[in-house]
This record gives sequence, C-alpha cells and structure tokens, in this order.
Amino acid sequence: MATSPVLTPRAEDFPRWYQELVNKAELAENGPVRGTMVIRPYGYGIWERMQADMDARIKRTGVQNAYFPLLIPQSYMTREAEHVEGFSPELAVVTHGGGKRLEEPAVVRPTSETIVNDYFAKWVRSYRDLPLLINQWANVVRWEMRPRLFLRTSEFLWQEGHTAHATFDQARDFAAGIHRDVYQDFMTQILAIDVVPGRKTARERFSGALNTLTLEAMMGDGKALQMATSHELGQNFSRAFGTRFLTREGTREHAWQTSWGSTTRMVGAMVMAHGDDHGLRLPPRLAPVQVVVLAVKGEDAVLTRARALAEELGTAGLRVRIDDRTDVPFGRRAVDWELKGVPVRIEIGPRDLAGDAPGGGGTATLVRRVPRTKEQVPLATLATTLPGLLEDDQALLLNQTRERRVQHTENVRTIGEAVEAATAGGWARLPWSALGPQGEAALAEHAVTVRCLVAEDGSVPRTEDEPGTVALVARAY
Amino acid sequence: MATSPVLTPRAEDFPRWYQELVNKAELAENGPVRGTMVIRPYGYGIWERMQADMDARIKRTGVQNAYFPLLIPQSYMTREAEHVEGFSPELAVVTHGGGKRLEEPAVVRPTSETIVNDYFAKWVRSYRDLPLLINQWANVVRWEMRPRLFLRTSEFLWQEGHTAHATFDQARDFAAGIHRDVYQDFMTQILAIDVVPGRKTARERFSGALNTLTLEAMMGDGKALQMATSHELGQNFSRAFGTRFLTREGTREHAWQTSWGSTTRMVGAMVMAHGDDHGLRLPPRLAPVQVVVLAVKGEDAVLTRARALAEELGTAGLRVRIDDRTDVPFGRRAVDWELKGVPVRIEIGPRDLAGDAPGGGGTATLVRRVPRTKEQVPLATLATTLPGLLEDDQALLLNQTRERRVQHTENVRTIGEAVEAATAGGWARLPWSALGPQGEAALAEHAVTVRCLVAEDGSVPRTEDEPGTVALVARAY
Repeated sequence: MATSPVLTPRAEDFPRWYQELVNKAELAENGPVRGTMVIRPYGYGIWERMQADMDARIKRTGVQNAYFPLLIPQSYMTREAEHVEGFSPELAVVTHGGGKRLEEPAVVRPTSETIVNDYFAKWVRSYRDLPLLINQWANVVRWEMRPRLFLRTSEFLWQEGHTAHATFDQARDFAAGIHRDVYQDFMTQILAIDVVPGRKTARERFSGALNTLTLEAMMGDGKALQMATSHELGQNFSRAFGTRFLTREGTREHAWQTSWGSTTRMVGAMVMAHGDDHGLRLPPRLAPVQVVVLAVKGEDAVLTRARALAEELGTAGLRVRIDDRTDVPFGRRAVDWELKGVPVRIEIGPRDLAGDAPGGGGTATLVRRVPRTKEQVPLATLATTLPGLLEDDQALLLNQTRERRVQHTENVRTIGEAVEAATAGGWARLPWSALGPQGEAALAEHAVTVRCLVAEDGSVPRTEDEPGTVALVARAY
Repeated sequence: MATSPVLTPRAEDFPRWYQELVNKAELAENGPVRGTMVIRPYGYGIWERMQADMDARIKRTGVQNAYFPLLIPQSYMTREAEHVEGFSPELAVVTHGGGKRLEEPAVVRPTSETIVNDYFAKWVRSYRDLPLLINQWANVVRWEMRPRLFLRTSEFLWQEGHTAHATFDQARDFAAGIHRDVYQDFMTQILAIDVVPGRKTARERFSGALNTLTLEAMMGDGKALQMATSHELGQNFSRAFGTRFLTREGTREHAWQTSWGSTTRMVGAMVMAHGDDHGLRLPPRLAPVQVVVLAVKGEDAVLTRARALAEELGTAGLRVRIDDRTDVPFGRRAVDWELKGVPVRIEIGPRDLAGDAPGGGGTATLVRRVPRTKEQVPLATLATTLPGLLEDDQALLLNQTRERRVQHTENVRTIGEAVEAATAGGWARLPWSALGPQGEAALAEHAVTVRCLVAEDGSVPRTEDEPGTVALVARAY
C-alpha cells in the first residue's frame, strides 16, 4: 500500500515518526516546564485501561492501594547511601512554601522508598504484621535532560509497589511473582508485546537495591525499551529507617523489602512496538475503542444503519464508537482512525444498504488495522465474527513483536561484534563471562548497554556468577 | 449503650474525637512535611470507591479524562489578576531541578486553570471544537497553616474539571449540571449526606471566577463543610491566555469556561457527618466492605460455616470480608469493625451452629452499625434479607443528616442573632439584604462566614441581588 502522507516513514527517521505520531494521534504534547507532558484524552484513555487491568492484577496478589505524600523532606533521601547518589541529579526541590523559605527543603518524590519506610517503621511491629503489601498510583518527578514524550519525561505517572517481608526468600519470591504474574503477563496478554525477563547488572540496578528484575522489549527500530522493573531491596531501606519486627522466636529483625514500578512509558511502548507508517496499531484487548462504525454519507438510511450496528456491537460486549461526522471528509476521518490505531473500522455507505448479502440486511466494508485488510462483509454477521477477528489481531501483534525480536537478535562472541549488532539496530547475546563490568564500560562508550542477564534456558539467573549467564546487549530508549 | 472506651466522646471534644477516629480506624496519618497526609489502605479504599462512582458520572456528561503537568511556570499564575492574588499565599515553589537553579521557578499546581488554558488556547480553533470537556484526577498542593487530616491538607487528591463553551449560557448551564447531577446527586445518593446547593458571595468566590456554586453540609457538631464547588469562569482565563474561537458567524470570541472540583475532603466529611462515639458509620453504597463475617472461635465447624456464608453473600453481590483472625480476642475485633464503620457484622460462634432456626441451617448474630441493633437471625435467609437492610441503613443515614440540618438551622433577623446561632453550633438563615458585604465582614470577626446564598424556594439565585435571597451563615471547617 502507498505510504501515508501524514507521517514521516519510520525507515527515514524513526524518532521523528514517533513524535509526529504521538502528536497527530492526539496522545500527548510537551508541557511548558522542560520535560513535562500533557496527556490528551485519547492517550489518557489508553493509560486508564492499562491502569484498570494492572490494578486488578495487583489486588489479586493481596496488595492494597494507599497514598503517600508528594513532598519528601530532603534529609530522607540521604539516609540510604546508594539511593541518594542515584537520585540526587534528578531531584526537583521545593524551597518555598506558603510565601516563606522552608526550614528544610522538600523534594518532589522521584520514588517513594524513603517516605514509605518512614511509615512501615511505625506500622510493622511483629511478624504478624508481615507481609505488608502496599501499592500507590501516583506522579513522580525526575528531572530529565533529554526528554521524549512518554519515554523520558520529567514528570510521569506510575504505580509503585512497596512490600515488607519476614525473610529474604519471601521478599525475593514476591518480587518474582509480581514480575511474572502482573508485569510480564500483562505485557504479553494485554499489550501484545513480547518481553524478555532478566536481571540487571550492578551498573544498571536501582539505586539502593540488591537486585533488579527487568522486562525488556524490542521496539520497531530494534532498540530496547525497559518496560517495568521489580527490585529486591534486601534490608537496605529497613536498616536506614529502622523498619524492624519481632520474630516468632522473639528476636528483632529488619524487614526484607521489595519495590516495583511501571509507568506511562508503556503508552510510548505501544507506539514504538506496534506502530507502522500509517499510525498506531492498538491491541484489541487494550484499545479504548475496538470498533469504529463510520457513516460514509449523511443520508438518513446510512446513519440509521450505522447507529443500529454500533448499538448491536456494543450490546455484544465490544467497545464501539460511532463516527457520524459526515461534514468532515470521509478520507480525513479514515486517516484519523488509522492514526489512532483503532483495530476495526466498519464503513457503511449508501451502496452497502442495497447490497445483496446472504441473509439480507446489506453489507459493509470491514477494514482491519492490524493486518491492513479490507473486505466487503454482510452486516448481519459482524456481531458474531468480530470478537474472533479481534482476538486474531491481538495474537498477530504479539507474534510480530516476537518474530522481530528473534530475527534481530544475534549471538556474538566479542564486544566488538556486540557493538556492531547493536549499532545496526538489533540485540546481541554474548556470554556474561566474556563481557563483565569492564566490557560493560566499554559498551557504554558506544551508547550500548547490557539490558539484562538471562540464563541460557531463558530463566532469570539467581546471581551474575551463575555459569552460562548470557548478557543481552542493545541500544535503548 | 455504654460510651466506647476507645474514642473521646464527640460531646467532650469533637476535633479530638475526629483525629482519634481517623487514626484508629486507620484512615490516614500526618505526613512528615507539614500539612501533608498519608492515606492508609482503608481510607484510600473509601476514596477509590468515591472515584469510581464520580468518574462514571463525570463521563456520562461527555467529559473525558486527561492529565496536565504538576509543575506550572510561575509566570502563568500571574496572568489572571484575581487568581494570583488568591493563590499566591498558598504556593509551593520549585526553585531547583536536576541540581541547578531553574531560570524560571515552577509552582506545584494549586489548581490547573492556568496551564489548562495554555492548551485550550491551542486546541480550540472554531465553534466546532466546542464544548471542550476535560477532567483530571490529580494531586494539588496548597500550603496549609492549620492542617487537619482530609479537611485541610497541604497536598490533597481531587478531580478538577475544565470546560470551554461558545456562550455564557452554555457554560453556566454546564456548571449547574455538573453541580446537580454529579456532585449533589453523588453526595445524596452515595455518601448519604444532605447538602444545600447555593452560590458563594463575592468574598468566598474562587479567585478568578464570576460565580461559584457550592454544596454545604452540616457536620456532627453543627459546623458547615464545603463539599464541592463549581465555577463559572466567564472569559477571565480565556482572555488571559487567548483561548479564542471562530464563531459560526465568522467572528472571533473568547471561550466561556467552567471549572469544578471535589477532593479527598469528602472522606473527612464521611467521618464528621456519620461518625458516632463508637467510630465511623459508612453508607452501604459507598462502603468498601459492606458485611464482615466474623468467626467468633477457631473451631473447624465455625470457620467452615463462616467461610461458606461469606462466599454465599459475595455471590449475592455484596462486598464481604471474612474475619477469621481467631487468635485476636473477639472483643477487640468487634470494636475494630465498629471503628471502621462496616455497616453489617455477622458473628458466628459454636452455639449458633446448634441453633434451631426456622428452615434449619443454624443462626448468627446480626449487628447493624447504623441503627446499632443486634439480633439473632437464621443464617439461611441472610443473602435475601441483607440487601434490603443495607438500603434501609443508607436511607437512615441520609435522613439523620437532613434532620440534623433542619433541627439546627435557625431563621434569624440580625447579625447578632446569626453569630449567636453559629457560635452555639448551628446554622442561621437571614435575608442577604439584611447582611450584605459589610455584615459579612462583621461576621468574619466572630469566625462566622456566609456559606452560601439561596433563594427562598431552595433554588440557587442567579445573582446576589435577586429579591428574597437568603444567606446561610455558619462556622465552617
């Protein structure tokens, strides 16, 4: 098919294509303070659906939502040595409140481990209070020098989970469970994005964690995007804040903790993983609008039929929007729905009503966004056939991201080969033993990073030193 | 019944009772930065249910959710003269970001009219783009000198709606519609709180508005609480930010706007409107847990029966929690559920299983939190009878707040009488013509304010000058 005139082709300039798509599909715009973002209704609707699905998953694990303050006393940040080192360069600092200079400046939370532990230290008394399982949906601020909408913004929206456990094993298992059953399953099943679970190297780990689990996805240009992370915090924060509990045996111990987060970056991932030169392609299970019924002309019979179909499909459980803006040219509306990535478009025009479809009742043009097919179909069967087609499209998108990843991942032996593969727009796999922290530093000079460490069988290694550990290496957003 | 030993009686010290209840029912705690608040899971669960119901109502009016940045360039605040005057004393200011002093300081949003208009000015081109109907769920910061959990906090959570319309009338009608169909109906039907709709005087109006509609409720001590406000902004912000549109006639005009907000303060209203000396009393339609099934003892037969009942009630559509923590003394658990205000408690003990109820199947003790009744009932009928009882309790709570308001509202003729009535812990009604801005200033010396102006028939007057306008006067939170 012809190249869309509305977007710069991906092959020509991927970052520009991304920015144009985010703007033209009305997902988001830059905010006035550097690096901030206005999320427009269509983009926010996608985020709302992500939130609803994730929130239900999180609650099923026994976690409860709560809310901790935006403003954190500056001194809290310094209590955990690695934490302050990692976050200091990114902090926004409130120095004045209510017209006066504050005695102690407050930072706008970049993440909430410190303030959460201030309260966990009060709430946790005995082993009976454990595990303590909390999540919050909130905004955080991390000053961003090279902002990009959704991917890197000075303010972003996220959920951050914080839990305290009685033992190292329980904390580790909980983090692993969230990572697998909430994050990985959500990304695979709902976002239709193939993700690789792995562990971060010491260099890439969360500031203050013993271990960070990640999920890495390959974007349309072969670069990697970190989709979510789950941290084993060990006793680092519980020691810094005195979060101790009375054990069953009567001793007092510091709690073992986890934290885990996923952000509005996932909206950007939707764009970069599934988008094509015509716009966004939304996975049907996520899409705020699954089906748009488009009245080609403003004749009464057409409008009546279009509205009746929309009603029928809505009753069948589909998320439907009617487009009866017949004062706007048909072509412009079609392009707009393509841009917005609505999985199915049904066009009804005057000729369709006269159509002699089997069973009568006229026909319609069915345009599927994911495979980009167009066919004439009987109106009467749509309510029955669409749910299956949407599931097919969901599977197709997941497969495309998986095939892309497999095709563009190369097994290499040397650092030079890894840099070459990553620079060419793909991922490289090489033995971690052939790389190590020195090799990692060498990669960094070429803006290439170790995205994660994986075991040869695809599982997540317990330590960096496990024999057979493989480093997955790429350029990343 | 005996006074609860866990709370200071309301009659003795209402503010202290409030604070103890908020803490002991585990709703919230003070945050480390002055005036901030940690909302604990039980309190947040109440807010989540408020959000879900309100969000659906807001969406039914055609409003879409979006998200605007937390940080607003300081200069934006100064563009609308009254707005900056009203909010300047309450601003939190970010002066440093990413380790550097910012060229222009940013304020943490106290409300978003300014930044929203910056984008409305870009998005609104022609009358075809109107009405533009946006809402956001967000946190805001207004520095608070005399903080009180939920009621006055330096950071609070809220929804803020922002709309733009082609005419004054359309804007006014939209604000009135939100006020009535979203706010008033939600408060009456879900929160079970009687509210009085009225208009604010010029003195109490939102900074930058032509008119502010309010809903005022009487708390347990006779003071007033402002529950939500809706503003007609006229063209004040559209002029300041250049939000103009091409009319159907080809002229260019500034848009007519509204904004409207409701906050986590509503959780405090739940406590102060419905709470008694034993704790919270939650309206059943709102309560995160409507029924707690409490196993009195840890015997297998009791636990089995309790769990089966919880399952049965859950299937019947009730929000049920099982309390099988039989290692905690029964009395302590009962007091805790009273504190938390769960509408119905069902206690199952060993004797109940032997009970010879009609139809067999044993009995249970049914304790209703709202009317504080306790009776022995057959287990088998609970799933059928409870929904009706919960609706009765919902109605009872609403009636109690209505009766309280009627009983403690006095018609007076003079400012002196109004001060006396308000100081005694009630509301006073007097002709606005007998009061006026001068009288209002005189009231303020006694910490008494005009809560709102109403017409004699209970409707909202279009102007302050309408004959027969009545001022509702009280002390307020």
